[in-house]
Amino acid sequence: MNVADYILDFLVKKKVRHVFLMTGGAISFVVDAFSRNKKISYTCVAHEQAAAMMADSYSRVGHNFSATMVTSGPGATNLLTGIACSWFDSIPTIHICGQVNSHELSNAHKSTKKVRQVGFQETDIVSMARPITKFSYQLKNEKDIRFALEKTYYIAQSGRPGPVLIDIPMGLQRKKINPSKLKSFKPNKQVILKKSTINEIQKIKNFLTKSKRPSIVVGGGVRYSKTTKALLAFVKNLNIPIVTTWSGVDSIDHDYKNYIGCIGDYGSRAANFVIQNSDFVLCLGSRLDTRVTGGIPKNFARGAFIAAVDIDKNELNKKRGLNIDIKINIDLSIFFKLFKKYIKNLHVDKMDWTQQALEWKIKYPTVLQSFRNQKKYVNPYAFMEQLSEILKDDEIVIGDTGAHLTWAIQALKIRRQQRLFSAFGNSPMGYAFPASLGASIALKKKRIICIVGDGSIQVNIQELHTMVANKLPVKIFAMNNNGYGIIKQFQKLYLSKRYEASGKGFSNPDFKKICKGFKVSYSEIRKNGDIEAIIKKALVSKKPEFINVFVKPDQQIIPKLSFGDPIEDQSPKIPRKDFYRNMLTKPISNNKKIIESN
Amino acid sequence: MNVADYILDFLVKKKVRHVFLMTGGAISFVVDAFSRNKKISYTCVAHEQAAAMMADSYSRVGHNFSATMVTSGPGATNLLTGIACSWFDSIPTIHICGQVNSHELSNAHKSTKKVRQVGFQETDIVSMARPITKFSYQLKNEKDIRFALEKTYYIAQSGRPGPVLIDIPMGLQRKKINPSKLKSFKPNKQVILKKSTINEIQKIKNFLTKSKRPSIVVGGGVRYSKTTKALLAFVKNLNIPIVTTWSGVDSIDHDYKNYIGCIGDYGSRAANFVIQNSDFVLCLGSRLDTRVTGGIPKNFARGAFIAAVDIDKNELNKKRGLNIDIKINIDLSIFFKLFKKYIKNLHVDKMDWTQQALEWKIKYPTVLQSFRNQKKYVNPYAFMEQLSEILKDDEIVIGDTGAHLTWAIQALKIRRQQRLFSAFGNSPMGYAFPASLGASIALKKKRIICIVGDGSIQVNIQELHTMVANKLPVKIFAMNNNGYGIIKQFQKLYLSKRYEASGKGFSNPDFKKICKGFKVSYSEIRKNGDIEAIIKKALVSKKPEFINVFVKPDQQIIPKLSFGDPIEDQSPKIPRKDFYRNMLTKPISNNKKIIESN
Repeated sequence: MNVADYILDFLVKKKVRHVFLMTGGAISFVVDAFSRNKKISYTCVAHEQAAAMMADSYSRVGHNFSATMVTSGPGATNLLTGIACSWFDSIPTIHICGQVNSHELSNAHKSTKKVRQVGFQETDIVSMARPITKFSYQLKNEKDIRFALEKTYYIAQSGRPGPVLIDIPMGLQRKKINPSKLKSFKPNKQVILKKSTINEIQKIKNFLTKSKRPSIVVGGGVRYSKTTKALLAFVKNLNIPIVTTWSGVDSIDHDYKNYIGCIGDYGSRAANFVIQNSDFVLCLGSRLDTRVTGGIPKNFARGAFIAAVDIDKNELNKKRGLNIDIKINIDLSIFFKLFKKYIKNLHVDKMDWTQQALEWKIKYPTVLQSFRNQKKYVNPYAFMEQLSEILKDDEIVIGDTGAHLTWAIQALKIRRQQRLFSAFGNSPMGYAFPASLGASIALKKKRIICIVGDGSIQVNIQELHTMVANKLPVKIFAMNNNGYGIIKQFQKLYLSKRYEASGKGFSNPDFKKICKGFKVSYSEIRKNGDIEAIIKKALVSKKPEFINVFVKPDQQIIPKLSFGDPIEDQSPKIPRKDFYRNMLTKPISNNKKIIESN
Repeated sequence: MNVADYILDFLVKKKVRHVFLMTGGAISFVVDAFSRNKKISYTCVAHEQAAAMMADSYSRVGHNFSATMVTSGPGATNLLTGIACSWFDSIPTIHICGQVNSHELSNAHKSTKKVRQVGFQETDIVSMARPITKFSYQLKNEKDIRFALEKTYYIAQSGRPGPVLIDIPMGLQRKKINPSKLKSFKPNKQVILKKSTINEIQKIKNFLTKSKRPSIVVGGGVRYSKTTKALLAFVKNLNIPIVTTWSGVDSIDHDYKNYIGCIGDYGSRAANFVIQNSDFVLCLGSRLDTRVTGGIPKNFARGAFIAAVDIDKNELNKKRGLNIDIKINIDLSIFFKLFKKYIKNLHVDKMDWTQQALEWKIKYPTVLQSFRNQKKYVNPYAFMEQLSEILKDDEIVIGDTGAHLTWAIQALKIRRQQRLFSAFGNSPMGYAFPASLGASIALKKKRIICIVGDGSIQVNIQELHTMVANKLPVKIFAMNNNGYGIIKQFQKLYLSKRYEASGKGFSNPDFKKICKGFKVSYSEIRKNGDIEAIIKKALVSKKPEFINVFVKPDQQIIPKLSFGDPIEDQSPKIPRKDFYRNMLTKPISNNKKIIESN
């Protein structure tokens, strides 16, 4: 058995059934090991970036996690954007990079430490990946392989999860080893529960009980800690409003009685009114990112005591104007267990407040009747509404980066086992399509709904062939506004409609012809009236499908926060009289300015 | 005037006429400045990786250098593989990345230094790019912009050139500045000439005169220091064999009377015999990479005193078994001037030795008659020979990474002003196509010959649209062996023909249909007899063209070095009798072993 065989055996033991790779000289021996191991298979990609994104989504929706394998130099650097997706969104993935032979490394001898390169395609990927991995490591000796894999795997999965990278010089890959003689890694698994945690849980109970307008923010941490069921049990006897962040959007059924909506810059007005009028906010697994809090964090939930549960203490201790009053630094799965154990028979019923939140939800719907009645082009909100109704209860929807993602998150109603995600923190254009392929492979060629923009689909368009060659029934809905919509909206607002490089200088290829080129079924939706029939037709088919959805070139995101405003006051502005009536917390000065200018 | 305007003004002053970009939130203000500056324009790409490769080739063939502009996070990380091309091959390029606002940076406050991200799409690109740039820098204050640009530019161009990166927080991009009040950068430009250098030049003269079998190795440094004319003047009165490395392949006319060929793993047998039989070798601007020396550097030019001129002292001082006896650490342009100044009336005429070298060149041609007579499929050597004959005297040929590049470098005869290059050190698949677009833009939409493989063209296939939208007459010759040929050859030799992920698991899309999809003219060459007519037809057209050249799926690279052998003994092995007769230097033991086993 050689090191390469050992790596595959290790992955098999960790329930990895598929890896994503592109071969190359320096990874040849690892790739060769697949010829001797039938319990694990690989998917070839046409660009390593796609492999990293496929592994990311495989880890999000699959049984455990996944891995990439690439060659040294450009093979490894091509992974970085994909690795960053896993880093910012706390997804465990393992990236195995081939490297030049140990004796051909620049740091093999002090005389070569400062040269740019010794071995062919040598690149210091370990240093380059360090800022976006939990652990980035080069194997020095074949006898360390067990220790390295066990440690790497442990780090990827433990605490706040994330990606890890192992760089393996070519010569080491084919070294013979005796598995029974390899050193193992013993993690210090004990989580020491602080006494203060119980006190803090007690405090949370008291705040939930005594506050007048409590609310719960559900973040991405709920999914990442696999506690969606525990969450439901937790909120069962809490009749208070529940809102989510973007990352938390699919952690709770949107039909749940107290669910109000997503908060933040592109959040729903109702959800933002909830959070901004709360006197107690319990954040579960949210880092309270700037897109959640608005550009001025101190304006977020400014009338509330804030409690937060987060696995990453650094997130809890940020001092950016938004102070967290009660910080609980544990995994959510432990939090829910402790809460259940120590807090018996809690019933919280803030009926009037919850009723108010639900009234806002009705008063400020995302999809307006005028959107449904739009005659020319497809209205993306009307589209998402209809798509939502057609989707199955266990559908997986993956969004890319751009205006289409905001439309999807604003208007899709996620129910039951449905998933809706993107690479939220990193937000690369080009994520959704390979991620859809990875998700489909993770779930036995399940149908995946892939929502992209006309700009973002081009980034990884080479993988259309991977989809077709592997017969993956991915349904690509391209929300086509002929340019970078979210940039155009920015340029319209702040740059006097100078559409440099978004409208001007930018153009699209002919997607119909390109689909034909890659042998992908193609259809178009050009007006609201065609939405239902075309979606249904595309979903009935067992094949990959590309649906070009024509939206207005200047289609706006509605609502959207303007620079400097607090999140309850998104644009377009609602009448000041209504705004004031909705504000139970004191509005801040720049709301007043708007009143004066109105 | 704001910082963004200043950046464009600066680039214009440095003769940059085109930059390559993809817009995005964090670079919006820089991109907006193009609306106010008509002296510089931009090309939009569909993936930032292509922008970096376009800037790289623009710098190689253009008047000065070029720049990219991208947004933060994935925009920036997508550049890295392209930046690495410039780093390893010493190409000056500037990469301007947008970044989140200064107050949204993780390191803006000590409490956030350890969080993964604060601002939306914040990524520490400065650290990630550091291993592959000469200077990687984040702007802290708008008043530093002049100093930063001048310093950055100076560093990129001076000494051994290379890429630089400036990361500019969004808020700073639109800050107003008074250009007349900005601090400037004063480089210490004085190059101190060591007295010993003149002695060493004298020594070189003596070696050239007194040695029996001297030779000259021309490396990439000749092009990078723009000294091709000085080189010609230098060798004018030296009747000794001249060989090149891959990077140096287009630094001298292959019709030059003493030119023998390329050396190294995939070099010509004649050139390798020259270097291995030399008793004095003068290396001009070559780092003597492992692909040049063979895997065991001490076997390279082992009968020779070696002198080397290199701008990078680290390259001269490498101790990897190959010791350089005379090290001159100056720019080649200075070396040639000093030589001319201090060495008068040098005439060196090693007629017999040169004659021997020229005989080897005739005896071991790259293109064999059997290659020309091949009936099925196109023989790539015959193809390159004919392509070479058809090309104009100032043609630019850019190769990708893979078997096709070895065929091109082995069999193209570069003459006059022709160029032939690839991103040699980094060698990413996908370089040649965007590089061809960048080169064409640098030279007023000049025709560019782009040689790729069926695997490598897919990596940046999204830019087919950029080519068509910008009407760039790039002629893409895809050497199609239906898989990764160079990997397949490796697997055949060392892995018992287990073609994992190169033949098995790998497949190609239908290039004909894809070309139709992107509206690119498409043609095919399926046998040797069609080569000339199809090439001529493709070149007559003023449009982009894609020519699918079908070579045998198991087409070999001939000759090629096997692991452990010295470069004079490439495979397939020549008869031992001939081999011995050719070796004037003592052959080494593993050559003897071959004799015994024969």
